Amino acid sequence: MTERVYNFSPGPAVLPLPVLEQVSRDMICLPGAGCSILELGHRTSTFREILSQAQHDLRRLLQIPDNYQILFLQGGSRLQFSMVPLNLLSGASCPAEYIVTGSWGSKALVEARRMGPAEAVWEGGDTNYDRLPPPDSPTGNPAAPYVYFTSNETIQGVQFAREPNAGNVPLVCDASSDFLSRPLDLQQYGMIFACAQKNAGPAGVTVVIIRNDLLQRDTDQLPGYLSYRNHAQEDSLYNTPTTFGVYVVGLVSRWLLEDIGGLDKMDAINRQKAKMLYDVLDQFPDFYRGHAMPECRSQMNVTFRLPSNELQEDFLREAEQRQLHNLKCHRSVGGVRASIYNAMPAEGVTELRDCMLEFAAQHGHSI
Amino acid sequence: MTERVYNFSPGPAVLPLPVLEQVSRDMICLPGAGCSILELGHRTSTFREILSQAQHDLRRLLQIPDNYQILFLQGGSRLQFSMVPLNLLSGASCPAEYIVTGSWGSKALVEARRMGPAEAVWEGGDTNYDRLPPPDSPTGNPAAPYVYFTSNETIQGVQFAREPNAGNVPLVCDASSDFLSRPLDLQQYGMIFACAQKNAGPAGVTVVIIRNDLLQRDTDQLPGYLSYRNHAQEDSLYNTPTTFGVYVVGLVSRWLLEDIGGLDKMDAINRQKAKMLYDVLDQFPDFYRGHAMPECRSQMNVTFRLPSNELQEDFLREAEQRQLHNLKCHRSVGGVRASIYNAMPAEGVTELRDCMLEFAAQHGHSI
Repeated sequence: MTERVYNFSPGPAVLPLPVLEQVSRDMICLPGAGCSILELGHRTSTFREILSQAQHDLRRLLQIPDNYQILFLQGGSRLQFSMVPLNLLSGASCPAEYIVTGSWGSKALVEARRMGPAEAVWEGGDTNYDRLPPPDSPTGNPAAPYVYFTSNETIQGVQFAREPNAGNVPLVCDASSDFLSRPLDLQQYGMIFACAQKNAGPAGVTVVIIRNDLLQRDTDQLPGYLSYRNHAQEDSLYNTPTTFGVYVVGLVSRWLLEDIGGLDKMDAINRQKAKMLYDVLDQFPDFYRGHAMPECRSQMNVTFRLPSNELQEDFLREAEQRQLHNLKCHRSVGGVRASIYNAMPAEGVTELRDCMLEFAAQHGHSI
Repeated sequence: MTERVYNFSPGPAVLPLPVLEQVSRDMICLPGAGCSILELGHRTSTFREILSQAQHDLRRLLQIPDNYQILFLQGGSRLQFSMVPLNLLSGASCPAEYIVTGSWGSKALVEARRMGPAEAVWEGGDTNYDRLPPPDSPTGNPAAPYVYFTSNETIQGVQFAREPNAGNVPLVCDASSDFLSRPLDLQQYGMIFACAQKNAGPAGVTVVIIRNDLLQRDTDQLPGYLSYRNHAQEDSLYNTPTTFGVYVVGLVSRWLLEDIGGLDKMDAINRQKAKMLYDVLDQFPDFYRGHAMPECRSQMNVTFRLPSNELQEDFLREAEQRQLHNLKCHRSVGGVRASIYNAMPAEGVTELRDCMLEFAAQHGHSI
């Protein structure tokens, strides 16, 4: 393959073509730097501008209030699964509360329990994570150190339409797979983290947005890298950050602001793309069997099964022939998953919809 | 600046131009992948080939024996400062032994002490880290869990010519700033780690080479990301690695094998480059005052001071006019530091030498 295909990979995932073009153009010599972004010292004024511009653009996109810090860390969501309890559980008199709606939330809870008291206040495993708790179901203990949830579960394809009600308890969110796909009311959160490799950039950089009061807890006994306070005090230069990752997240943020026109517009586009596919599921519910309950469907990851494994393999093969790639779902759910993040063009989704309609017709299902 | 300068940055640092050109060329569509390296799933066969080719090439370059694993991690050396004691100190009956020859070793010891018993068996702070322990000085306790050293101290510019004698105790090395600059006898090490942003690649990826027996220790209570065993068991796919970082380390390894011809040749080139600058220091010892004792000089970071701050500023200005950039040393040492890693062309070093000779002549110092 020497040409780009439609890449429905769950992550690392499709990025905006103008961003890739700029990265390519500036790889030998970043204008004004005299060297590649890969060679640029993290304490140079040029890199500090890149860092602060990325923070500024994220702040504009998400309307992040001044009392929240924006950090760029390494180690992915996996390291966040440990950093969250290590930083926020210390001295807690009762357990942190986890709303477990899929594979990632479940892994986060396992890690949290290694670090301190944590419990599932809702768990969707009995129905293979095809649904969410009812909206506005109150969480438990008002003295809990935090309430944790995963806004979008990449593997199962379920997504919160709005935040769970945590009362006055700090709400912590793993937003890895829907970060920057829609506007958020940051005031509702104590902290959000997102590994970049879905909507925001390359693998290896994780954005953490954290409210100042959560940086006050004592972290002196933690491994230095694992303290949010250390990173906040040094404005993400506690150690050498992944300079390239910060740079690409900055370019993606620019693209969202300037080419797309902000997160309201991005959200509208994403809804339209997702609707194209869910409409097919609703037209042929016996042939394309959606995994998520309709009211919990993800705008990012559309998951469904066909009536048999054989048909599924045939479908994936046919899709691949049409340059629709990486549609096979994670083995824990099986079937097909179309990840249609911000940078997946509407043309790709249209092509996939057409492929689904034609494949259904070939097997005797047409409107 | 729209042209490349000679970049003497200590890190992130200069990379081989052919590597940057290939990254640029393949940024839109990596041949065979149908997408950019930034968009490529870490579990695809294409990425697995990139990962195993990088491991294979590193193994060839450093002649790494089969009983060592090669891991690609995130979090830089800072996270290694904690991971080393967390993984290797557990259950130790006596302290780990640190040979502290500069700023990085000193920070590593601070982190180790947070995690368990660790002590400095040699400490060069009294002379501002201008020297190393005498070669072959034996370390202390044969029951120590490990002996730790920093092969090259970037800030002070001191470098071990050969490994300290640790007897049968596992030797752990932070090789961040001289990794891949010369051949190593891996058999002498229990473990080596190196953040990539000096000689091996971009910031954000850290190479860990660890002997199998050190992966046997119990790490079940650690945060999952911090266990070497977890990463080794999943061949660096315990979580999404920094796919781009692994890819660039692979390209740099190819460049070393094919363009340079291996680490013996790289070492010879590096010695020649360093000699050009140290010869000037030796010619004008009153004008260019080397920081490191001559027998401890680094082949990677050449550190010196001029007779006054004013002269130093003049020198740095003059160098910059000749496109010789980022020569200012870290504030803890002061003066000038020329980082001349693998990818710094000999022409850049020649130009710097000429600049030094002319500047000395302008101030009444000539041969």
